[in-house]
Amino acid sequence: MASHSSTLLSSPTFAPFSSHRLHHSPNLTTLRFSNPIRTNKPNLALRCSVSIEKEVPETERPFTFLRDSDDSTQSSSSTSSVRARFETMIRSAQDSVCEAIEAIEGGPKFKEDVWSRPGGGGGISRVLQDGNVFEKAGVNVSVVYGVMPPEAYRAAKGSASDQKPGPVPFFAAGVSSVLHPKNPFAPTLHFNYRYFETDAPKDVPGAPRQWWFGGGTDFTPAYIFEEDVKHFHSIQKQACDKFDPSFYPRFKKWCDDYFYIKHRDERRGLGGIFFDDLNDYDQEMLLSFSTECANSVVPAYIPIVEKRKDMEFTEQHKAWQQLRRGRYVEFNLVYDRGTTFGLKTGGRIESILVSLPLSARWEYDHKPEEGTEEWKLLDACINPKEWI
Amino acid sequence: MASHSSTLLSSPTFAPFSSHRLHHSPNLTTLRFSNPIRTNKPNLALRCSVSIEKEVPETERPFTFLRDSDDSTQSSSSTSSVRARFETMIRSAQDSVCEAIEAIEGGPKFKEDVWSRPGGGGGISRVLQDGNVFEKAGVNVSVVYGVMPPEAYRAAKGSASDQKPGPVPFFAAGVSSVLHPKNPFAPTLHFNYRYFETDAPKDVPGAPRQWWFGGGTDFTPAYIFEEDVKHFHSIQKQACDKFDPSFYPRFKKWCDDYFYIKHRDERRGLGGIFFDDLNDYDQEMLLSFSTECANSVVPAYIPIVEKRKDMEFTEQHKAWQQLRRGRYVEFNLVYDRGTTFGLKTGGRIESILVSLPLSARWEYDHKPEEGTEEWKLLDACINPKEWI
Repeated sequence: MASHSSTLLSSPTFAPFSSHRLHHSPNLTTLRFSNPIRTNKPNLALRCSVSIEKEVPETERPFTFLRDSDDSTQSSSSTSSVRARFETMIRSAQDSVCEAIEAIEGGPKFKEDVWSRPGGGGGISRVLQDGNVFEKAGVNVSVVYGVMPPEAYRAAKGSASDQKPGPVPFFAAGVSSVLHPKNPFAPTLHFNYRYFETDAPKDVPGAPRQWWFGGGTDFTPAYIFEEDVKHFHSIQKQACDKFDPSFYPRFKKWCDDYFYIKHRDERRGLGGIFFDDLNDYDQEMLLSFSTECANSVVPAYIPIVEKRKDMEFTEQHKAWQQLRRGRYVEFNLVYDRGTTFGLKTGGRIESILVSLPLSARWEYDHKPEEGTEEWKLLDACINPKEWI
Repeated sequence: MASHSSTLLSSPTFAPFSSHRLHHSPNLTTLRFSNPIRTNKPNLALRCSVSIEKEVPETERPFTFLRDSDDSTQSSSSTSSVRARFETMIRSAQDSVCEAIEAIEGGPKFKEDVWSRPGGGGGISRVLQDGNVFEKAGVNVSVVYGVMPPEAYRAAKGSASDQKPGPVPFFAAGVSSVLHPKNPFAPTLHFNYRYFETDAPKDVPGAPRQWWFGGGTDFTPAYIFEEDVKHFHSIQKQACDKFDPSFYPRFKKWCDDYFYIKHRDERRGLGGIFFDDLNDYDQEMLLSFSTECANSVVPAYIPIVEKRKDMEFTEQHKAWQQLRRGRYVEFNLVYDRGTTFGLKTGGRIESILVSLPLSARWEYDHKPEEGTEEWKLLDACINPKEWI
């Protein structure tokens, strides 16, 4: 059905093309469906730049989602090897986060969906809903083989050739997770680490291959416990400092800038780290850095949840948490690149929208009274602070 | 602050430019904020095609939001008169719907916010939240004087002149409402009626003025009571049939097409009527038609709420209603033209987002069992039916 084996990434903040690439790619930003109303098979009606291959449910987790030619156990190419090691890393991160969540839940378990695409790639979605501690916890990995329009391929533009480059095959893999606890004093956590590679455009054989890393970990409390915020940011800084002293300040600011709800002039939460398009460092170093960040999720977050999960709270506390979850929904549906891109191009909807909270709330013109705990949180979302 | 007295419309499905106009207007569809993060005064950072004048709260409802030059009591121009009569109509519709809601509430009253813009125009937002019958009921009117980019002005494109047309002043007025009842057997209602006029582009004096009408009434039950659906659609058809036998079938289909959640391949509800860009009929006829439609809201909807508001329900019924409200949020934040346009260009956020329900829910991979009442509703959202 798909004219080429292209697919989409199915997790929030997980678009294959970063903002400046999109900037060069009007075809991508104006993706349109041709008259989707007139058919009950919308995929047939897609006339967008990236076509989608429908995912197929699998009964078991495969050893790898890589194509045979990419599997490092079958290939000695070092490029394949980064793909393979990144897949291993994100699957291991998924396992360790899910184990930590199940340990804290003490009973309730994740539900797992495994899926693949005929042309290669696939994913594992794990969701734990309405548990003892978590309202909704989603931890997904996916591996995608796709084809991007040549306009999205930065390097190809460098060649002054009149030759119109063809579609650019790409590889992408990532882990993405949103964890929404029940207790309004326990913060929501999001993390996502991803790796991309492109081949050369088909008709520009000399053009270079590209690769880049992206990701981040950010948290969204409804109430500020300064010791929690300091702990969370300190662990992010420790992970960054092992690699480059410029990383934490740079990626902390990037995070504050990215999770910005423009129409509210406020951030969705209290930040963390975020980076994208990272390729101007050694590739092995960035693989290690991503691994370190992913491994930091459990120590950064789980102790906070342990401390807050059984605190007593009132209906008012809960209502405020629900209002902040409304903001979370606004950010994800209106601004998040991975979500909006995924929705428009036909990614796996349930995996994309697992980031939404189990419940959310919108009150007309709600303004917390100055000086209250709710006001303090809002103030910190409007005016990002240095926490450490 | 604003370089010209431009403003934005502040209600869902209430964008000043219809889809085919937007199609000709890349500047509008790619509205961007220039680095909004770096300032706490985002309006100063706006670099978009339509600039916004900040609204000012008013303590009293003015007799009219029209500029003096447009007020028909002060002018004999028949064009001004349509503006004035449309404003009178929408304010009267707001009053009668609010009265009907307050009567059914038996105590709780609407909270009113009145605002204006220094360059002309303004609005009245009324919200009743957490009442006896309604979770959230919002009924807004607004009057806007703005300036649209010449690309959005269809007639200007007709002139083959090389002269680049200047910005096009426009007038818009509308009533917009979303009513979310508490009882899961009582449907949500949305209606919106609007009128637009443009002046000629500033540097193309010969180009014609334009006007058009838009609007619709649609309803969104969580459970189907066939008698309710038939009643609702019959009243819409009666209103349409008074003017043109083609209106109901055409606008019923338009409604099914418009309120389509592409990424779900389902409609948000069971439709009603929707039209836009209507100017190929007599202007007076269309003013009467809009008036008839607005006057049909109370008889179409209130008897259904009366019948359903006190029905007993279970937690499961409520959870399903909340899930459908999640879909409502998805439609409004991702697809609704008025909402997405308003969010990106700085309309009055609280008026725009009053359409969102007080609470909503997202469950991972929820699929109602075939044959259940929930499944029947979903089926009707996927496959629109002829109800009468």
